[in-house]
Amino acid sequence: MSSFPPSLEKVIEAFSRFPGIGKKTAQRLGFHVLKSDKENAIELANALVEVKENIHFCEICHHIAEVSPCPICTDERRDKSIICVVETPEDIFLFEKTGFRGIYHVLGGVISPLDGIGPDDLNIEDLLNRLTNVNEVIVATNANIEGDATALYLARLLSPMNIKVSRLARGLPVGGHLEYVDDATLLRSIDERVEIQ
Amino acid sequence: MSSFPPSLEKVIEAFSRFPGIGKKTAQRLGFHVLKSDKENAIELANALVEVKENIHFCEICHHIAEVSPCPICTDERRDKSIICVVETPEDIFLFEKTGFRGIYHVLGGVISPLDGIGPDDLNIEDLLNRLTNVNEVIVATNANIEGDATALYLARLLSPMNIKVSRLARGLPVGGHLEYVDDATLLRSIDERVEIQ
Repeated sequence: MSSFPPSLEKVIEAFSRFPGIGKKTAQRLGFHVLKSDKENAIELANALVEVKENIHFCEICHHIAEVSPCPICTDERRDKSIICVVETPEDIFLFEKTGFRGIYHVLGGVISPLDGIGPDDLNIEDLLNRLTNVNEVIVATNANIEGDATALYLARLLSPMNIKVSRLARGLPVGGHLEYVDDATLLRSIDERVEIQ
Repeated sequence: MSSFPPSLEKVIEAFSRFPGIGKKTAQRLGFHVLKSDKENAIELANALVEVKENIHFCEICHHIAEVSPCPICTDERRDKSIICVVETPEDIFLFEKTGFRGIYHVLGGVISPLDGIGPDDLNIEDLLNRLTNVNEVIVATNANIEGDATALYLARLLSPMNIKVSRLARGLPVGGHLEYVDDATLLRSIDERVEIQ
């Protein structure tokens, strides 16, 4: 028995479709639109339309970009011999902050039988097609079961090709206190301890 | 050193201008727009434009509505002798859920000297102009210092007019446990105790 005016109701409806935005938050956002300048609303509206029109997937690495191939794939200064394989385009932005200078390949997910996602649903064939002159593939999937399974699958698939396949290190977070580290991570940090040279 | 494509950056920028939406959440929303159907993005975009065009303030009560006077002010079945004075249009939607059948008046805020808001900044004159045939004014401002001060101000202003001015009751929340009620509310619930008839 909501009695919001129909056009306000529509905005609230549209906001509440976003993940993590409940009914109350959507209402708060809707009322904020009413209160704030018209320019702000128009700006968001235009940005929404533009982003759907302008952003596409890179034909080489499946990253999102306004051009295809994406700026990373066409960057001559990057080391094309090392490919970092990630689950989603979001992950690339995280690695870009670290200063990583290789190139990327977006799988578009991970192998997850429970969700009905097998190797054929991922961009694996495209990865195989770009492995000429590649020395190393870093499988940077998430540190969970599906991520590990996908990494293992890729490692086995690539083993006949004489390409080094590596995985991200597990261990203590930098600056982390032992007290707050979970058992599994602590165990891993012992198993994969590094000799001090 | 963010390296999001410009049109994605714009969407994230626009989202992060909303209250309670930080940088991380804005990014999550931006990526959601990329992943979800184009129709959803267009729908939100259109809704944003429409809401700014269609929603206006009611010339009588300052509520938001697509028509002025608003549907509440023009509803013949409502008791026009009792006006509920609220701070914001949002508050009206809350009272509508209670089944209140009087009419409303939106102050547009509360008297708050610290924020530089005095009586002249509120829709008080419009309230005074609509008090013919009104028996009671319920001042439904928030239960804080500014809300109380505003209620007191209105009560004094209206006292010569032979209109009953009331305020919302304070006390235990319905279904509330004594254990979780703060001292000030508990004290108030004793002071304003009601005789069991």
